[in-house]
Amino acid sequence: VLVTTITNLTYNEIQIGDSASYSRTVTEDTLVMFGAVCGDLNPVHFDEAFAQTTQFKQRIVHGMWSGSIISAALALTLPGPGSVYLGQHIKFTRPLFINDTLTIELTVKEKHEKLHRIVLNCVGKNQHGKVVLEGTAEVMAATEKLTLELATLPEIIIKR
Amino acid sequence: VLVTTITNLTYNEIQIGDSASYSRTVTEDTLVMFGAVCGDLNPVHFDEAFAQTTQFKQRIVHGMWSGSIISAALALTLPGPGSVYLGQHIKFTRPLFINDTLTIELTVKEKHEKLHRIVLNCVGKNQHGKVVLEGTAEVMAATEKLTLELATLPEIIIKR
Repeated sequence: VLVTTITNLTYNEIQIGDSASYSRTVTEDTLVMFGAVCGDLNPVHFDEAFAQTTQFKQRIVHGMWSGSIISAALALTLPGPGSVYLGQHIKFTRPLFINDTLTIELTVKEKHEKLHRIVLNCVGKNQHGKVVLEGTAEVMAATEKLTLELATLPEIIIKR
Repeated sequence: VLVTTITNLTYNEIQIGDSASYSRTVTEDTLVMFGAVCGDLNPVHFDEAFAQTTQFKQRIVHGMWSGSIISAALALTLPGPGSVYLGQHIKFTRPLFINDTLTIELTVKEKHEKLHRIVLNCVGKNQHGKVVLEGTAEVMAATEKLTLELATLPEIIIKR
């Protein structure tokens, strides 16, 4: 399903216990672009022969890729557009591997009138249902209802 | 300067107070790739006309791009290769804008024998010296000295 518009929940609409989820698969291309974006070209992410000598016996995905997926879950689903990211705690509990699918489950656990601050529990699971991360996000929710059109990205070509 | 090899500090070598820094500039291409990687195509990051109607009056960079730079700083500088990312806390204090340069400063504040766990303070500053984030990272440091060659990425072409 191609999502082209997103709508937020306003501070007043959000209830403690509200939840949402967002899934994303990490491909070979994802890894290359993430490496280009942050500069972490560690062979544990890119060199299969080297990775086989490590404790994980295969290449692992950059831990903070999962962080980017939490961030996208907040921006796209709950509270959605118009929210301002205040902070994030993440505990990484298991590695992700190439072609894994990460699902982030968000649940609202606190609402604070001051700054319209919302605290959400974040749990990340792989396609086998195993927890790969746990954490807490803090965002400032919007007070106005917003429906926005997502951007269309230019084409990205990775030459191999 | 093109860094092609990286060397770690082992758990035993690391001293409380040790510090390192890592800088990275966020370009238009960075933003496009970060959006492609996580799926957050919110117009506040990509649509200049929309962004001018927001409180920041211009497009802002995905907050978690800064998270990816903290992660790269840990993996490339302190402790460097062989460390395992256990957790991260980030508090975002100011937005970053296109073409800003983020410098992450890491300082070791705790060492724990169990898991060879190292706790580091993380401060992120923009090119004007303003603090844009603060946080704490937890990593498991390697016990063996490692010098590794960074991967070379395939060419990435963004068609505009």
